[in-house]
Amino acid sequence: MVGLVLKNCAYVLTQNDKRDVLRNCDILVEDGRIVSISKASTRMDYKDHEVVDCKNKIVMSSLINAHTHAPMSLLRGYRDDDELSTWLNAVWKVEKKMSKSDVFAGALFSCMEMIKTGTSCFVDMYFYMEEVMKAAEKAGMRAFLGYGIMDEDKAVDGKMVFSKTERFVKRMKNVKNELVNAVVAPHSIYTCSEELIMKAKELANEHGLLFTMHLAETRWEVWNSIKEHGLRPAELLEKIGVVDDKSIFFHASWLTKGEIRLLAKNKASVVHCPVSNMKLATGGAFPYREMKEAGVKAALGTDGACSNNSLNMFNEMKAAALLQKWFRWNAKEMVAQQALDMATIAPASMLKLNAGSIEAGKYADIILLDANHYSMLPHSSIVSNIVYSANPEAITDVIINGKFVMRDKTILTLDEEKVKEKFMKRVERLIA
Amino acid sequence: MVGLVLKNCAYVLTQNDKRDVLRNCDILVEDGRIVSISKASTRMDYKDHEVVDCKNKIVMSSLINAHTHAPMSLLRGYRDDDELSTWLNAVWKVEKKMSKSDVFAGALFSCMEMIKTGTSCFVDMYFYMEEVMKAAEKAGMRAFLGYGIMDEDKAVDGKMVFSKTERFVKRMKNVKNELVNAVVAPHSIYTCSEELIMKAKELANEHGLLFTMHLAETRWEVWNSIKEHGLRPAELLEKIGVVDDKSIFFHASWLTKGEIRLLAKNKASVVHCPVSNMKLATGGAFPYREMKEAGVKAALGTDGACSNNSLNMFNEMKAAALLQKWFRWNAKEMVAQQALDMATIAPASMLKLNAGSIEAGKYADIILLDANHYSMLPHSSIVSNIVYSANPEAITDVIINGKFVMRDKTILTLDEEKVKEKFMKRVERLIA
Repeated sequence: MVGLVLKNCAYVLTQNDKRDVLRNCDILVEDGRIVSISKASTRMDYKDHEVVDCKNKIVMSSLINAHTHAPMSLLRGYRDDDELSTWLNAVWKVEKKMSKSDVFAGALFSCMEMIKTGTSCFVDMYFYMEEVMKAAEKAGMRAFLGYGIMDEDKAVDGKMVFSKTERFVKRMKNVKNELVNAVVAPHSIYTCSEELIMKAKELANEHGLLFTMHLAETRWEVWNSIKEHGLRPAELLEKIGVVDDKSIFFHASWLTKGEIRLLAKNKASVVHCPVSNMKLATGGAFPYREMKEAGVKAALGTDGACSNNSLNMFNEMKAAALLQKWFRWNAKEMVAQQALDMATIAPASMLKLNAGSIEAGKYADIILLDANHYSMLPHSSIVSNIVYSANPEAITDVIINGKFVMRDKTILTLDEEKVKEKFMKRVERLIA
Repeated sequence: MVGLVLKNCAYVLTQNDKRDVLRNCDILVEDGRIVSISKASTRMDYKDHEVVDCKNKIVMSSLINAHTHAPMSLLRGYRDDDELSTWLNAVWKVEKKMSKSDVFAGALFSCMEMIKTGTSCFVDMYFYMEEVMKAAEKAGMRAFLGYGIMDEDKAVDGKMVFSKTERFVKRMKNVKNELVNAVVAPHSIYTCSEELIMKAKELANEHGLLFTMHLAETRWEVWNSIKEHGLRPAELLEKIGVVDDKSIFFHASWLTKGEIRLLAKNKASVVHCPVSNMKLATGGAFPYREMKEAGVKAALGTDGACSNNSLNMFNEMKAAALLQKWFRWNAKEMVAQQALDMATIAPASMLKLNAGSIEAGKYADIILLDANHYSMLPHSSIVSNIVYSANPEAITDVIINGKFVMRDKTILTLDEEKVKEKFMKRVERLIA
């Protein structure tokens, strides 16, 4: 087959500049890309193409999870209802015990969950990232993979020292799969020295890679930054020269307007993780209004399954919109369309990824949803249904880079039962 | 068959006083009630019983949605991203056009969605409540049905005048189905005069019924109450004598500590709707800590599907816990177990309903979940998985009053496709 035709799509959420929602369209896919979106019935004879009947489907860009720690599914439910610092210390203890096989099994399980919930691409930070890469490859997902970096005394028994990142970045140069990409990922200002962060940015620049980092997640981090450096977190990072258009900062909640202007001026991006922030009681509301006004690109991420405890980006869109509305006493503070943008075109843009919308020339990263699933009814507003009502059960198919990865609710790239079985064995060993 | 045996249950979330989570148990059900929970294999010969293999199942009490407006699924996605007053005025316009058939179709669709998402019982307030009753009966659900009451000039074209409630209450006396119950439901202090509210309470007392009402949902309501009556909302209701152990107040967010003590003293109960409050930007955080300290029973509800926009009580439990943690900067403010209680034993208690836990003597209102569904893995904490990770796709069976209403993901009481079809026709007519 030369390509794929999604025939007679009931609804297409294009996410183009006008945010058109089209009816009864055909989408032509060739060589992993969207070739055209045209009125149905103009061409009926796609004889070299696989034709997929979409007359009962909602068709949209698959979602991008812009911040997670995929292997942490292993720790789901292991430690709940603690605030960040207590939680993190408990988690690190188990992470010290984790083997490469644990990381692979956890990451593969998460890939399965992400596909099932309509996510095609994730931005990850962990250790043994070769294993996460293998999991993403096996699952057929797009991934941006950052080998976490910490100071030697904090580096989870040496698993997150700088040399591991260097080696990973070099190895990734030889990987032929264009879906997987390396990024450089120092953990945070409270686990990395200034020198280490600068070294990481140099490495990123040397290889032309994106640079990702946790930033301003808690009040403590801000307080500690001022105490240790006399500067707020974003000010510190600007001073050492690591804030630019290839920098992506996770959480970014406890920032001043001045820091937000600083991110905007340097064209850096941010990723908001509302569920994780709420669950870990970080207190600070992501300053969405200020980010928007300053022109900072903002995406959404679930964070790891140990602080969420789900990798479902549909939940994340809803949580983001709800939190902003409620916190600001303004129901228009973040509307459904804006939440959807933060899971599609915004992260694609910050990742310099030619995806996130259904437009000619874009990668064919597409999900199909059953338009007749109860959570998609009625059809008064499809965008509203996607953000406020969707149950991932409605997702029937996931296409990544033009290929079906899930078809009629069955993942084609993985044996789901085996993935679960191996995962459960790893958890048993790890959490005794 | 005399009864039912849930054989070899992998996990049973009992919700008993000790909140035991049992392993490998048999649950014996007869005449709609749980007879015993015993260690598996002690009795293998249930020859007069239907035996259901539950070795891969998580077994728990089905959920209770303590505040909704079931027919409002018709309006899902009709009006989003508005605050309460703007939203309510828009909604009332469509509600004026609603026919009995519209209400029936909307309520039946919602029953389907509730069953699919593990809810067996709902507390409703709307008009044409005979239709909602018929829908609940058809679906096989438990329901507490309040015919909404407003002052004549506000009563949605006469649909919510007092006489309709009177007639409904009398008719419900002749209904033989013990699963459906009438309650008396004045809408709110801003749509009902003091006299009307008192008349409603008299009617409730006369028939020994529960009394339900919206209370202190917005700041405006508080401000208006002080302006019109010189009293805060709960103070007003106490003054006119309608606050007692048969009173249930929905939302109850913008209350002072004094009002909470007043509710506690009179043994009234409250229902928190975190998603609806956040979506409608009501601003006030439900004072869970104060309610708990004062000893006020608190349950959860989704509110209508037009302000949520889902009837999924799993989402509601998660949202409740997240909001409390984040708002109070305290990850232990509401833990998973407490959120689960608010969807099971707490509402059962306030409804004087012998349900909400898996204990001998309780009604057999039970759901089975696939313990091997990705959202239920790993098994480090089943309660955590239920509250923070669950996807309703994991629910395989719903038992209400000892009878299967959903079996292996198929609803037995309804033809799902027909329910959707009729519902969609009603929406088309209503929203042109």
